[in-house]
Amino acid sequence: MAQNDSVSEFLETAVEAAKKAGEIIREGFYQTKHVEHKGQGSFEMEIELSIQVDLVTETDKACEALIFNHLKQQYPSHKLIGEETTAACGATELTDEPTWIVDPLDGTTNFVHGFPFVCISIGLTIGKVPTVGVVYNPIMDELFTGVHGKGAFLNGKPIKVSSQSELVKSLLATEAGTKRDKSTVDATTDKINSLLFKVRSLRMSGSCALNLCGIACGRIDLFYETGYGGPWDVAGGAVIVKEAGGLVYDPSGKDFDITSQRVAASNPLLKDAFVEVLQQTE
Amino acid sequence: MAQNDSVSEFLETAVEAAKKAGEIIREGFYQTKHVEHKGQGSFEMEIELSIQVDLVTETDKACEALIFNHLKQQYPSHKLIGEETTAACGATELTDEPTWIVDPLDGTTNFVHGFPFVCISIGLTIGKVPTVGVVYNPIMDELFTGVHGKGAFLNGKPIKVSSQSELVKSLLATEAGTKRDKSTVDATTDKINSLLFKVRSLRMSGSCALNLCGIACGRIDLFYETGYGGPWDVAGGAVIVKEAGGLVYDPSGKDFDITSQRVAASNPLLKDAFVEVLQQTE
Repeated sequence: MAQNDSVSEFLETAVEAAKKAGEIIREGFYQTKHVEHKGQGSFEMEIELSIQVDLVTETDKACEALIFNHLKQQYPSHKLIGEETTAACGATELTDEPTWIVDPLDGTTNFVHGFPFVCISIGLTIGKVPTVGVVYNPIMDELFTGVHGKGAFLNGKPIKVSSQSELVKSLLATEAGTKRDKSTVDATTDKINSLLFKVRSLRMSGSCALNLCGIACGRIDLFYETGYGGPWDVAGGAVIVKEAGGLVYDPSGKDFDITSQRVAASNPLLKDAFVEVLQQTE
Repeated sequence: MAQNDSVSEFLETAVEAAKKAGEIIREGFYQTKHVEHKGQGSFEMEIELSIQVDLVTETDKACEALIFNHLKQQYPSHKLIGEETTAACGATELTDEPTWIVDPLDGTTNFVHGFPFVCISIGLTIGKVPTVGVVYNPIMDELFTGVHGKGAFLNGKPIKVSSQSELVKSLLATEAGTKRDKSTVDATTDKINSLLFKVRSLRMSGSCALNLCGIACGRIDLFYETGYGGPWDVAGGAVIVKEAGGLVYDPSGKDFDITSQRVAASNPLLKDAFVEVLQQTE
C-alpha cells in the first residue's frame, strides 16, 4: 500500500486501529465478570484468577499485534514502539523517524477488575515531536483525538482544558503506581498529604493516558505521575492535552521528556502554582 | 393515590424518580462544560465559576424536590430524609416508619468538573432495615438496584461481589473527603500509606454511593470511608451490596450504623483481613 504522508490520514489509520482493538478489549472486559462461580471453594477461585491473568495478557498481546499490523500495512517504513514488544525485546530508542508509540491496553488492573477506565493509547512522533494522539476508552465509548496544530476532540467534538486558575478549587489526579517499596510508597503518600491541603480533591482512576485526556477535556485540572511504565502511557495523551490548550511538563517545571517516566499536566494558568507545590515535596 | 405496600412497587417508584432526576443531572452535567469562554480574562472566569456553583446547588435542589414529590405522591405516609432538606432543617431522626433516604446528587465535585462519577441515591428503610436501594449514574447510564431478599442488579442484570480472597490482589477504593484540617488529612494519608503495602491498588472516584455499587458488582474489592455527609450517601448502596452477596460494616468490624458516617464494605472473604489492616491505623 502506498505511503501517505497526510497527518489527517495518519489520524484516521490510528483511529481505525484503536476501534478494532477496542472490540477485543470490550469483549475481554465483560468476560472477566462472566466467569462462572460454581462454588466458593478455593479451586474455583484459582481457576478464575488464572483465567483473568491469562485474559489480560492475551488481550494486551492481541491488541498490540492488531494495531502494529494495521499500522505496518499502511506505513511499512514507520517505526513501532509498543509496551508488549519493549517488555519482550528491551528498550527501543526513539529516533527522528515517524514512530508509532502504542499502549494496547492502559489500565490493566482496571481491566482485570472490570473498572471502566481502560483504554488504547496510540501516539505518533515525527522528528521526536508528538504529532498525532488517539486515546480510546472502549467501555465508555470515548474517543479522544489530537493532531499537532489542529485541535483536540472527544468523539468528534472540540475539547479544551479547564479555565480554573486557583489550586484550591482544582481537582487533582494522580496514581499510586505499582512499586511497593517503603521509600516509593512514603514519597507517594507524603506528596498526596501536602497536595490535599492545597487542592479541592483527589481522583485516582488507574489510567495515565485517560488522566491526560481528563486534563484535555477539563474533567480534572491537575495531573502528575512518576514511575509509570513508559512513553506509551503518555505519547497519545500529550498531543491531546497540548491541542486542547494545556501544558505537559516535567513535575519539576522543566520540559517534558517522553522517555523520563515523569509527567505533569494542567492548563497554563495553574502550572506555576502546581510546580511550586510539587517541588515542596521533592 | 392509594398506598401500595409491595416492595417491588416501592422499587419501581424509586427507579422512576431516579430516572427523572437523572435527566436534570445529565442536562446540568453537560452544561457545566458548555459555558462559553470568550476570553482568558478573570471576569469571564468568575462568571463561569459562579454559574457552576449556582448550577450544582440548583440541580441538587431541583432533583431532591422532584424525587420527594414523586415519593410523596405515591406514599403520602412515608417519611423522607434528604441531604438538602437536612442541611436546611437540621437532622431528622430515623424511625421505624417506612423512610426514604435520598441523596439527589452524590459526587457534586465531579458534577462541577464534568467527571463522570455522579449519581442519585435512594434508599428505603422499613423498621430501620434498609429494604430498597436505587443508585443511578445518569452519565454512564448505569442503574444499580437492590431489594432486601431479592438480589442486586445493574441495568436489570444480576450482579455479585468479587470472589477475591487475598488483600494483595484486591482493588481498594476510598475518598479524601472534604475536611482539610491537619489531623484529618494526616489520618487519611497515614491510612492510605499502610494500605498501599497490603493491597493491589487504590481508586478514588468521588462518590460514596458509586463506591458501594463498585463493591456490589465486583469492580472493586474493598471500600471504606469515614466522615462522609450522612445516611443518604449509604442508604441505597448498602442494600445493593448486601443483595450482591457483600457485607457492609463499620471499619472497626462492628455492625454498620447508617447514622455514623463510617462505612466499610467488601465480600465476606476479605472482611477480617481488611478490618485488621484498618484497625492497625486507627
